[in-house]
Amino acid sequence: MAKKITSRKQDYSQWYNDIIQGADLAENSGVRGCMVIKPYGYAIWEKMQAELDRMFKQTGHENAYFPLFIPKSYLSKEADHIEGFAKECAVVTHYRLKNSADGSGVVVDPKAKLEEELIVRPTSETIIWDTYRKWIQSYRDLPILVNQWANVVRWEMRTRLFLRTSEFLWQEGHTAHATKEEAIVETEQMIHIYSKFAEDFMAMPVIIGLKSPKERFAGAEQTYCIEALMQDGKALQAGTSHFLAQNFAKAFDVKFTTKEGKQEYVWATSWGVSTRLMGALVMTHSDDHGLVLPPKLAPYQVVIVPIYKGVEQLQQISASVLKVKKLLESKGISVKFDDRDTHKPGWKFAEYELKGVPLRLTLGPRDLENGTIEISRRDNFEKETLNIEGVEERIQDLLEEIQKNLYQKALDFREERTFIANSKEEFINLINKGGFVYAHWDGTIETEELIKQKTKATIRCIPIDNKNVSGTCLFTEKPSEMRVLFAKNY
Amino acid sequence: MAKKITSRKQDYSQWYNDIIQGADLAENSGVRGCMVIKPYGYAIWEKMQAELDRMFKQTGHENAYFPLFIPKSYLSKEADHIEGFAKECAVVTHYRLKNSADGSGVVVDPKAKLEEELIVRPTSETIIWDTYRKWIQSYRDLPILVNQWANVVRWEMRTRLFLRTSEFLWQEGHTAHATKEEAIVETEQMIHIYSKFAEDFMAMPVIIGLKSPKERFAGAEQTYCIEALMQDGKALQAGTSHFLAQNFAKAFDVKFTTKEGKQEYVWATSWGVSTRLMGALVMTHSDDHGLVLPPKLAPYQVVIVPIYKGVEQLQQISASVLKVKKLLESKGISVKFDDRDTHKPGWKFAEYELKGVPLRLTLGPRDLENGTIEISRRDNFEKETLNIEGVEERIQDLLEEIQKNLYQKALDFREERTFIANSKEEFINLINKGGFVYAHWDGTIETEELIKQKTKATIRCIPIDNKNVSGTCLFTEKPSEMRVLFAKNY
Repeated sequence: MAKKITSRKQDYSQWYNDIIQGADLAENSGVRGCMVIKPYGYAIWEKMQAELDRMFKQTGHENAYFPLFIPKSYLSKEADHIEGFAKECAVVTHYRLKNSADGSGVVVDPKAKLEEELIVRPTSETIIWDTYRKWIQSYRDLPILVNQWANVVRWEMRTRLFLRTSEFLWQEGHTAHATKEEAIVETEQMIHIYSKFAEDFMAMPVIIGLKSPKERFAGAEQTYCIEALMQDGKALQAGTSHFLAQNFAKAFDVKFTTKEGKQEYVWATSWGVSTRLMGALVMTHSDDHGLVLPPKLAPYQVVIVPIYKGVEQLQQISASVLKVKKLLESKGISVKFDDRDTHKPGWKFAEYELKGVPLRLTLGPRDLENGTIEISRRDNFEKETLNIEGVEERIQDLLEEIQKNLYQKALDFREERTFIANSKEEFINLINKGGFVYAHWDGTIETEELIKQKTKATIRCIPIDNKNVSGTCLFTEKPSEMRVLFAKNY
Repeated sequence: MAKKITSRKQDYSQWYNDIIQGADLAENSGVRGCMVIKPYGYAIWEKMQAELDRMFKQTGHENAYFPLFIPKSYLSKEADHIEGFAKECAVVTHYRLKNSADGSGVVVDPKAKLEEELIVRPTSETIIWDTYRKWIQSYRDLPILVNQWANVVRWEMRTRLFLRTSEFLWQEGHTAHATKEEAIVETEQMIHIYSKFAEDFMAMPVIIGLKSPKERFAGAEQTYCIEALMQDGKALQAGTSHFLAQNFAKAFDVKFTTKEGKQEYVWATSWGVSTRLMGALVMTHSDDHGLVLPPKLAPYQVVIVPIYKGVEQLQQISASVLKVKKLLESKGISVKFDDRDTHKPGWKFAEYELKGVPLRLTLGPRDLENGTIEISRRDNFEKETLNIEGVEERIQDLLEEIQKNLYQKALDFREERTFIANSKEEFINLINKGGFVYAHWDGTIETEELIKQKTKATIRCIPIDNKNVSGTCLFTEKPSEMRVLFAKNY
């Protein structure tokens, strides 16, 4: 009856796919590497968007929209940037189809070749900084605090739903500032907003840190990130915020007149999170029964399933359910009442378990007699039977409790799987076991690459709350100023 | 000081561009035919989106997301559809760039040619119906009521901001039904939702009608539209809703098992409105002073400008303004307090006039003494000075009044410019004068084309509330069953 979920132990990767499919979140499309986000999955993404958008606006950002296409010459203007993205660009070369000469169908019209190829945006720094040149003359025009909700394309050979797709949805903030200091403050502010969103809404603990030079965004001088630990012991980068210095201002000649009348290049940041967060959400909380959702991101927080025989009983139960529903809604709780007669209660229970609805209420004939209702929690399967009167207070409390419990559980898991390695052997053992491993590193790209080659681990970040404890690099025995965070990663 | 707006009389088309630029709504980008929607313009679009989204959800629709790319073979499956869109397709042919052999920059990597070209979606019927095949087996899976907010690309040679751009933003609803009747009800429901949105929120009167066969959507059996009249006497199609019959179900082999156990093709609708509505909004209400916004779509409904000398006076005034602001916000009214000291009040007045803010409040030292505030309406420039106490009630009333007034003004204009033509000469005169012209037509595509050729007028629609008055076609003298609506159009 219910769709079968492979257990994590048996096959973690299949488990992930089973959850996505079973909970109706997304599926592969007929277009290689592009996914279809299904209504239930999209409803979760909409909740994420709404909250992030609120946080962005609260900190003075406005939304705007820039073109999908980027002329090849724009993308090429910043050397590191084009180097980073050239290998994954979808390229538009023609603007018309025509009927084939042999009548077999439509073909690309060779006469409609573009003079300059257009790249489907992999990210929008170049087209945006080309625009900012027109917007910025004086210090009075600064700062510019703009965000864009958009689709982007980075051609991928190996794709996984939400985690790595050729097209994905995201937001990208692009800000322009008069001073370096202000741009750095913005970069840091945004990574803290992402961290707050991850922890308070996704109930997903994250570590804030700086990327090593090797892992920086192509074109950035500094990249901050948030890193989360998934249940298979792999890390997932959940958001990034880049200090771009004057790189794009220089590439696109964006200068401003200072208060003192001097001409200076503008300072920039960019920052983004994507539908990848959906994958992170799935892997942080779900279990072998299906998806588990934190109440703050659940499309509906409560589902009510009636148990009845015959139309008359359903009517009686419905009357009672609708009262409860109204009470809950008056508290801002979202409720679905599933009174479909095409499916049995058992089928519905399995369905909502799969879909991760935080609380299930059941109301049957006996409850009707006793004025009670049964509550079942998705996170720990605990049940209780309560008087209907005042049940809305209890449900409000329970939703808060579930939100906290999920966070704590994920935090406990991460703490259990966070280690310090003091020797190369220990490092290799711990990395193979899975989890976050703090270790000394000599600070060079060569050693970082060596470690990746030997162990598949990468430097996830240099945590911002890191303690400066000097030591020696585990792989080269050269001096190290602090331990950095390693893990295998998505 | 203020940006100069060309008058409508002098040059309507330049007036339109001046408003878009002056009010900071959008601008052309470096990418041919693609626009940048600036923060103030995007904020209006967000208000439109929020309201439409609410209306869609209220009628049981859910959002989802489908791929940006459509394989060429998909687009070709429905004959009329590909015929309609082939000439405006942006085509992705490659998925990688590489360094050029001569070191002069990056070029398309010829080794990374796609086996099958991908079309950047001009509309999503084909990719969506390819997906629906997997979603629909039984009548229990129907209806599917899905909407998507997305960007689409239709290559245009001559573009105009918002009205005709190669890339635009829109929503596209795609529904699947078990019966023809249900699909028709849905098609009609959605055109009525669009009409309600246009009239109640945009304050823009529209005529609901059916498109003539020539003007139907490529792949539709019937197309409903809403048509509005712009101030230059040209019509603008503001939204469409298509009854697609079983055309796409047949093209993509989407069948379902009926209650009786038979296999049948699924019935379809699709419907959409786009950022074109922004152009319609601008042209419906704006005047020679700038943009005029209906309060329900204004990013901020009230702007407060303080008039002061020195910091101390500003502080006193600010204290009073902040109280008013709080009161207004408690009534759900959005307020901007512009206390910038970098611009003078006169500059600000001109700025907010250009931006179409419905109400401007001014508070100066004399107001402070008298406990008054000055209110100025954008729609008719009327001013009044009121006691601060209770001002929030008056402002709430005024905003409603402005919303109604704008609608009535646009309706009056349309009524004045709607004519009946009873002879060919009269028709040509009226069409040249500009406006909606009702006239008899023999119902053939040939005559429709002839009329367009001779007069540049097209059949905007066959209004649904049309009276069946028989007569003879003005151009062929063949019999006609009713008058249809003609106009020159955008």
